Amino acid sequence: MIIMETDATREQIARVIKEIEQYGLRADVSKGAFRTVIGLVGDESKVDFAHFATLPGVKEAMRIETPYKLISREYNKFFETGEQRFVVKVGNIEVGGDEPVYMAGPCAVESKEQLFRIAEGVKKAGAHILRGGVFKPRTSVHSFQGLGAGGQEEAREALDWLRDAGNRFEMPVVTEVRGEIQVDLVAEYVDILQIGARNMYDQDLLTKAASTGKPILYKRHFGAGIEEFLSFTEYMAAEGNKNIILCERGILPVGKGKSYTRYTLDLGAVPAIQKETYLPVMVDPSHAAGRRDLVYSLSCAAIAAGACGLLIEVHYNPAEALVDGQQMITPDELKDTINACNRVHKAIDLKKN
Amino acid sequence: MIIMETDATREQIARVIKEIEQYGLRADVSKGAFRTVIGLVGDESKVDFAHFATLPGVKEAMRIETPYKLISREYNKFFETGEQRFVVKVGNIEVGGDEPVYMAGPCAVESKEQLFRIAEGVKKAGAHILRGGVFKPRTSVHSFQGLGAGGQEEAREALDWLRDAGNRFEMPVVTEVRGEIQVDLVAEYVDILQIGARNMYDQDLLTKAASTGKPILYKRHFGAGIEEFLSFTEYMAAEGNKNIILCERGILPVGKGKSYTRYTLDLGAVPAIQKETYLPVMVDPSHAAGRRDLVYSLSCAAIAAGACGLLIEVHYNPAEALVDGQQMITPDELKDTINACNRVHKAIDLKKN
Amino acid sequence: MIIMETDATREQIARVIKEIEQYGLRADVSKGAFRTVIGLVGDESKVDFAHFATLPGVKEAMRIETPYKLISREYNKFFETGEQRFVVKVGNIEVGGDEPVYMAGPCAVESKEQLFRIAEGVKKAGAHILRGGVFKPRTSVHSFQGLGAGGQEEAREALDWLRDAGNRFEMPVVTEVRGEIQVDLVAEYVDILQIGARNMYDQDLLTKAASTGKPILYKRHFGAGIEEFLSFTEYMAAEGNKNIILCERGILPVGKGKSYTRYTLDLGAVPAIQKETYLPVMVDPSHAAGRRDLVYSLSCAAIAAGACGLLIEVHYNPAEALVDGQQMITPDELKDTINACNRVHKAIDLKKN
Amino acid sequence: MIIMETDATREQIARVIKEIEQYGLRADVSKGAFRTVIGLVGDESKVDFAHFATLPGVKEAMRIETPYKLISREYNKFFETGEQRFVVKVGNIEVGGDEPVYMAGPCAVESKEQLFRIAEGVKKAGAHILRGGVFKPRTSVHSFQGLGAGGQEEAREALDWLRDAGNRFEMPVVTEVRGEIQVDLVAEYVDILQIGARNMYDQDLLTKAASTGKPILYKRHFGAGIEEFLSFTEYMAAEGNKNIILCERGILPVGKGKSYTRYTLDLGAVPAIQKETYLPVMVDPSHAAGRRDLVYSLSCAAIAAGACGLLIEVHYNPAEALVDGQQMITPDELKDTINACNRVHKAIDLKKN
Repeated sequence: MIIMETDATREQIARVIKEIEQYGLRADVSKGAFRTVIGLVGDESKVDFAHFATLPGVKEAMRIETPYKLISREYNKFFETGEQRFVVKVGNIEVGGDEPVYMAGPCAVESKEQLFRIAEGVKKAGAHILRGGVFKPRTSVHSFQGLGAGGQEEAREALDWLRDAGNRFEMPVVTEVRGEIQVDLVAEYVDILQIGARNMYDQDLLTKAASTGKPILYKRHFGAGIEEFLSFTEYMAAEGNKNIILCERGILPVGKGKSYTRYTLDLGAVPAIQKETYLPVMVDPSHAAGRRDLVYSLSCAAIAAGACGLLIEVHYNPAEALVDGQQMITPDELKDTINACNRVHKAIDLKKN
Repeated sequence: MIIMETDATREQIARVIKEIEQYGLRADVSKGAFRTVIGLVGDESKVDFAHFATLPGVKEAMRIETPYKLISREYNKFFETGEQRFVVKVGNIEVGGDEPVYMAGPCAVESKEQLFRIAEGVKKAGAHILRGGVFKPRTSVHSFQGLGAGGQEEAREALDWLRDAGNRFEMPVVTEVRGEIQVDLVAEYVDILQIGARNMYDQDLLTKAASTGKPILYKRHFGAGIEEFLSFTEYMAAEGNKNIILCERGILPVGKGKSYTRYTLDLGAVPAIQKETYLPVMVDPSHAAGRRDLVYSLSCAAIAAGACGLLIEVHYNPAEALVDGQQMITPDELKDTINACNRVHKAIDLKKN
Repeated sequence: MIIMETDATREQIARVIKEIEQYGLRADVSKGAFRTVIGLVGDESKVDFAHFATLPGVKEAMRIETPYKLISREYNKFFETGEQRFVVKVGNIEVGGDEPVYMAGPCAVESKEQLFRIAEGVKKAGAHILRGGVFKPRTSVHSFQGLGAGGQEEAREALDWLRDAGNRFEMPVVTEVRGEIQVDLVAEYVDILQIGARNMYDQDLLTKAASTGKPILYKRHFGAGIEEFLSFTEYMAAEGNKNIILCERGILPVGKGKSYTRYTLDLGAVPAIQKETYLPVMVDPSHAAGRRDLVYSLSCAAIAAGACGLLIEVHYNPAEALVDGQQMITPDELKDTINACNRVHKAIDLKKN
Repeated sequence: MIIMETDATREQIARVIKEIEQYGLRADVSKGAFRTVIGLVGDESKVDFAHFATLPGVKEAMRIETPYKLISREYNKFFETGEQRFVVKVGNIEVGGDEPVYMAGPCAVESKEQLFRIAEGVKKAGAHILRGGVFKPRTSVHSFQGLGAGGQEEAREALDWLRDAGNRFEMPVVTEVRGEIQVDLVAEYVDILQIGARNMYDQDLLTKAASTGKPILYKRHFGAGIEEFLSFTEYMAAEGNKNIILCERGILPVGKGKSYTRYTLDLGAVPAIQKETYLPVMVDPSHAAGRRDLVYSLSCAAIAAGACGLLIEVHYNPAEALVDGQQMITPDELKDTINACNRVHKAIDLKKN
């Protein structure tokens, strides 16, 4: 990392960047109110930092041995922004701001009618952002894979509905991209690109999605430790895109015998990650629980743990959903949940968090 | 399980019990307002339930194939008590009642002065029950094992202090029993016997502790699934002691790399267990987090998830604690935490939980 | 699944396929010596099997509710091939045949000279197939990502070396593809496409790689259960490509404290999978152990457990390797390992396995 | 740790021990051919090692910060015994010697006839030591708990049979002790005390069992890391009993979906532990697999990994066993397994292990 003097000139900065690039690395340039900090992206094992320290305009040059630095509070302290968290703006909505943000909608988009009916329901219930899956990652090739599996045309049609529903009910929209080749298509239609838990390790997808500049909703894999999760997040930050919302959605359960929840929601990860990075963390209680009767409790718990918002699956009639019906709640239940979460949010003091 | 007619006589009940005992099994007799239900304790694979169904006074006789039935809602529905939860009474304190219960104190009792000073602090902060370890289970034989390790006399002295501190500051007291041979001694002094996570599977200890009739605070092992936890809980219920408070304290973390929390607090287990059994569930955020700066967040989250109370480690000067100093908070921080938790408790609607 | 009569005509088969496709599904047609079996690929929840059973030439039509059927022994029993295992042929090499197959080479291709020197070494030591990474999946964006990360030209150069080394030392070659967009390029050069553990869940990559028709070496993710692993394998079989070699390379370790191995090698998975599917299973002891002094023991153990072969990382000077040097062995150590494994292979009776 | 001069006198050694005890610690005195090494047992944080270094006859005094040192190779290197492993002698049998040792027998002793019939079978098959459970740890209080659960008299009767069967068929016998209060009773009858996986953390049981001086067969808990396992082993060594045989029997499986093995056998732990400590490690493939058709493969794999022996459950008619029938093999299958294992043992070179 290279910290420039407060009065460093553009030419001095440009020279540093040029020398970084001569190592085959990229430069991540962050301009704060007072100074500019330049992060090195890539394998910096061969970089001569002593040399950089002698360049004009350079205040300090040091090697940072950590798999994530662009997103860490440690690295970002050199800006002294004083911000509790980085805020990701999506239209009028601020993720990581003063109020919890609720993303809701069906697991999978099944039809225009289904989507609009749910969109209307979640809007009335207090949701801010509409979610709906078009390309569904599924364990079995023999299960419904989302309308996007039907081909380019069906995918565009479903994405069109999503866009229209967002416009109609005044909510930004988010959907999942599962592979690199879907990124450009999906980015045409939605406000946030979601990268699902199963694709957390897909660094080519991360790089491609981040390069669109769109905000990313990035879910932790159920077998990933926090350090791994943040290390892979760094692939996106390294593309210069720091509009990243992290999402905890449950990790592998431990122990023998019957599972009472689908995954183990790791709420300790919420404050732990928010102390470690400046990125906002949301929680998906629906996938974690895998059963609708726990969504209320886990939603309240997530907000109490300091989460910036929730991602909840909703259907007017969960029994007829093609995917994950057992974990969906109705718009009425969503309303109760959002109201309770807002009360919980007021009850806690985030500064102690 | 044998469900008696509402007008079954004492003689009819006695006959059923006698026949159960002839199989080498024990009878767990529960008298409700309207009827008596008799559970069979032990291996009932050879029991002829059809025969029991023909005995006078018997309404229904059925085999229940589950590793826990005495503590399950399913089994207890035959009493139709309508209670949301079973309440464990400890002196004036009700665990599982309308308000969260806070147990607090040092990890290990180190001296009379240390204990009294902390006891006074936690009482002022709003705690209801005083905790303090005398026999400490430790991973290394080369670490401090608690004052109880010094022998019978030292153990009695430390237990005396605990009793006195409880009396002085008007709080019931709880301490851990680690082996069968300590049970009688410890039961002389304390109001609640704690069985720690590492001893969760020690069925001889469970049986012995339950046989004292004292309330038990029973912690889930970090490698145990919920079904195992409840199955071992049944060993205590089988002794006729149902004054059992369950405690979630974190399970093994998943994934590679640096751990940001000592264990993974499984808050989904709280509502899941409370839906499955009628026993109250508390949460220990201190051991789960293993770092004091997460105790506030995880405490609020636990109460939001519906926990009946918290078990928090407190020290006036965490830096000088002999055991687990890094996860202890001060009495002032405890006060903030309890106040926030009480606000969170009011914010949620337990009926939706 | 549709089982045809032994004398079913091509027209009858064609009609069944056509009707399957009318449901928007694909047909997986397997022609055995005596009869043809047609598997349905996709969501068969709406298929009317009773109707299929009435079509001419159809012997039996049944719904199979399992996330993997094309690769399962259960499904394949209808061919009664009597084969212990399906053999994947790569040039002259038979994976799943009578003798264990050894794939060896550097973790990452670093230079032509490094690759050729190692290739010569592993050939002399008894290896059958040459491995070498060009696109390296890495936890940190700040680590060496393989020569393929340098761009299309560098990737082609490294792949050229690999092809040449294979030709020169008469070994088929295998390298990893990390994203869909690399598949076509890589498939031009190598004999086997490897899909790494971190990409196990990337169904778009699986589909794309399988569609090349090349044999696939497919590694289990460290957080994946066997059922998940086989379910995702089915995505490749569903493309009509059954030349799949499965690879166990270690799963997440359990428990607190220092790790003595990088992952936990799950050798029970080897016979378990080979009893469940007809696909051959190899083992990668290098990544599992993460330390070179355990590679000999775990290699012998893997062969003793019935593995069809091993994947071992080799370097003439592990200390100077850019990636994973701590787990590489030298060509001389490889020779000892292969010899011991061959003796172990003779010592066991695979029929009892 | 205090390393004495080679010519240190008994008085000098006695003085060191006395000073150690003045700290409230115990001394573990190991006399090698050339010198004596004294380990400190207990919390040595307050010990002044500089002072010890000045005592007459002391060569070196140093603090060793590790949760296990009495059993570690590191600590024991000061004896330079040159032994590959420490050998635990049980009658004529050497565990950790040149040949693998096989312990076999029923999971639970059910009757004298059952036990004798199985004992005869396993002896003929090549087993060296007879196992049989009298006190069974069980997940459910409603399952068969072993004959020992019937009371003191039944326990003695079953232990008598075990002793008689051992004498009759010339095999030492091993059985499990589940709680401290059973130790004295069981030690009267058997040659090896087994401490089961569920009781791994029961430090009071460990201390009590070790104090009998009998060899201990100590199983790793399914949620325990290797460091924890060895740390708790140290509790026994601290009693001065180093006749400890460690046993790997499977850890918690990872991942979602159907389990194909009951636990995950961690064979990497075998060489890892044997490199870390001088204690012999055995493997229990029966509990790990939980299915009899994998016992042959996993037995061969365990021996190939360098295990000193196996612990296998055997029944002449597994279908009628009261406990764990699904994982038992017959005496004939045991014979095949032992023969294969002996061939595998010859195929590997333990020096490379």
